[in-house]
Amino acid sequence: MVTLREIPGGITAPAGFRAAGVPAGIKASGAPDVALIVPESGSTGAALFTTNQVQAAPVSVSREHLARSGGRVAAVLVNSGCANACTGPDGLEVTRASAQAVAARLGCPVEQVLIASTGVIGVALDRAKLLAGIDRAADALSATGGGHAARAILTTDLGPKEHAVEVCTGNGGFRVGGMAKGAGMIEPLLATMLAFVTTDARVDAVLLHEALAASADDTLNAITVDGECSTNDTLVALASGASGVQITRGAGLDALTAGMRAVCHKLALDIVRGGEGATRLVAVRVTGAHDRAAAKQAARTIANSLLVKTAIHGGDPNWGRLVAAAGRSGVPFDLSRALVRVGAVVLFRDGLPFDEAAPEAARVLQGTEIEIQVDLGTGGADEATVWTCDLSAEYVRINGEYRT
Amino acid sequence: MVTLREIPGGITAPAGFRAAGVPAGIKASGAPDVALIVPESGSTGAALFTTNQVQAAPVSVSREHLARSGGRVAAVLVNSGCANACTGPDGLEVTRASAQAVAARLGCPVEQVLIASTGVIGVALDRAKLLAGIDRAADALSATGGGHAARAILTTDLGPKEHAVEVCTGNGGFRVGGMAKGAGMIEPLLATMLAFVTTDARVDAVLLHEALAASADDTLNAITVDGECSTNDTLVALASGASGVQITRGAGLDALTAGMRAVCHKLALDIVRGGEGATRLVAVRVTGAHDRAAAKQAARTIANSLLVKTAIHGGDPNWGRLVAAAGRSGVPFDLSRALVRVGAVVLFRDGLPFDEAAPEAARVLQGTEIEIQVDLGTGGADEATVWTCDLSAEYVRINGEYRT
Repeated sequence: MVTLREIPGGITAPAGFRAAGVPAGIKASGAPDVALIVPESGSTGAALFTTNQVQAAPVSVSREHLARSGGRVAAVLVNSGCANACTGPDGLEVTRASAQAVAARLGCPVEQVLIASTGVIGVALDRAKLLAGIDRAADALSATGGGHAARAILTTDLGPKEHAVEVCTGNGGFRVGGMAKGAGMIEPLLATMLAFVTTDARVDAVLLHEALAASADDTLNAITVDGECSTNDTLVALASGASGVQITRGAGLDALTAGMRAVCHKLALDIVRGGEGATRLVAVRVTGAHDRAAAKQAARTIANSLLVKTAIHGGDPNWGRLVAAAGRSGVPFDLSRALVRVGAVVLFRDGLPFDEAAPEAARVLQGTEIEIQVDLGTGGADEATVWTCDLSAEYVRINGEYRT
Repeated sequence: MVTLREIPGGITAPAGFRAAGVPAGIKASGAPDVALIVPESGSTGAALFTTNQVQAAPVSVSREHLARSGGRVAAVLVNSGCANACTGPDGLEVTRASAQAVAARLGCPVEQVLIASTGVIGVALDRAKLLAGIDRAADALSATGGGHAARAILTTDLGPKEHAVEVCTGNGGFRVGGMAKGAGMIEPLLATMLAFVTTDARVDAVLLHEALAASADDTLNAITVDGECSTNDTLVALASGASGVQITRGAGLDALTAGMRAVCHKLALDIVRGGEGATRLVAVRVTGAHDRAAAKQAARTIANSLLVKTAIHGGDPNWGRLVAAAGRSGVPFDLSRALVRVGAVVLFRDGLPFDEAAPEAARVLQGTEIEIQVDLGTGGADEATVWTCDLSAEYVRINGEYRT
């Protein structure tokens, strides 16, 4: 019997973590821009990185470190305000120097330091400012510093994104916490989702990675703001073991995954809600598929359709755009048995529209959180949900303005 | 030696075609909405249809007719104002009845009649209005009626799109003409590219199809306005043979393809220029690929990127968004050897930016016709170009308004 309970806080809600967030002058605004997460010694770590072939320097270095350390993580350094992407050998050098500085300051092997950056692509990261920021952050580390870290990783997000849960199992309780920054292009040339999940469960790196991948699949990997995949996307999980609850494949892995999924789910929805110009959070649920991959592909195609996103923005229950998007998604789709539902309102079933229901569906679309269901009509039992937001003129304004 | 010369007119510029465009009351505005194209008896035809699994009734019927007739076409009926898509068995019945009416009026087998519709999805096509329109259009058929037909297939396009060329070969001259309507969602729920190409060359249906497919590949199949694929897309080619110039695989096929490609190219660019809210026509040229398919996939990903399209709208020479889009396109990409050029201005080469060139590139982006080149850096010799337009707040406004 596993139960989850929401608790306040983020990455320092679980025991065994210190964190800090400080201003280092990388952002011109003077807002906090360097964060440090330091788990107790002996912590395990796992991470997922962007699939973009263009990978920022911190992504390359973190991949390499995690492979060399075999899943031991002593610190995670994050900076906002500069992505350190497409910056050539100099950018790689700055990332390596910052990892060295963290390792020297904390007295850990350099390969146990992970790095994440977010901000403008193609701009050099200021080495002196970053190194000074590392010192300041190390001084500020505290067991209640999660909130400061959550603010220091933001770019132009509307506010910090933090969630935590307490997981109770037959073998005892442990906690999972997390923080994230937005996935939209929060300002021109800035495109990154960063998320960090901590737990005080005791778990080896292999199982932690398994739980992380399973948690991300239908949460942080099932959202879209604009269909763009960043050069810096990073999701890190850290396990301190401070709760003393040991996770094995037979005992606790499901509970850990459930806790991590709950935190990732809430962070994911926060990211979509905070998407650029977004006014509505939309769950696109595709049912009636022969496998989950097909359901997700159709859901993703619908969730990224400009015509669907503009129709939702305009409050138009436009089922024609939904079936047209499903029809071009490349997965089997049978219009004569398909179904479209907005909230509880059926708009299309078995090849025919219910236009008399359109006014009621339009009222549903006035809400800020909406579920849309498209059944592919192929008789399959699999389904998937992708969360998206509407597309507004504000998105165009934000991303159409010149960077300088 | 093949030479091409632009000539005035559209589908009736080649000999052996009559056409008409008349108002039938399908559009509430009273604008022309029924067109008829009638080649001389004995004409051959070929067509390409939407790849969307949701196919409108006219697409299903035209596919079936073309297969049954073995590439003989005696008439093409087009209506605008109603897509007759997602309209169930009744919609299919109206399409079949309209083909029967055209066949009876012209005295041809019903399977030699092709049908195309464009307009709102999910709304019934008015049978009585359409049948009356067919009679009126048949009365109005003339050898100079191409311009009327070009107007009757429009929805809210800014104006008609017609082009024609004269092709001179060692074996004599022939003509190719064409007309099209827009590919953007010209108004909510209306999503269709229709294009019709005529020639007075004498060519069998197999070679005509081959020339059509080759012509469309890098023209009408290489454009995007919003990445959406309609339920009604139709491209038809008709050959009257009236010039007397016989096309065989060994003699004239290249010339015919060149003529058809020239007309399709001009129609394609007209469609992108007329994209909803578009202010700029952008040629995205991807070079350095190992095969053409990879080049086209990368070009299409860049051309559909919201961040690229909004940057171009804002006049921002944002090479970071271009390399990020190429990097997520799924084809091999080597950042350390990649190149980005806007017009003649190199912004990125061999892993490093040339930011000092940004102001000059920003000036290039003030133009209305822009070429952007991205070299994938893999050393391949293949390339492809996809034409797109910028994304403006006007696009969101047009597609966000409620249908009614």
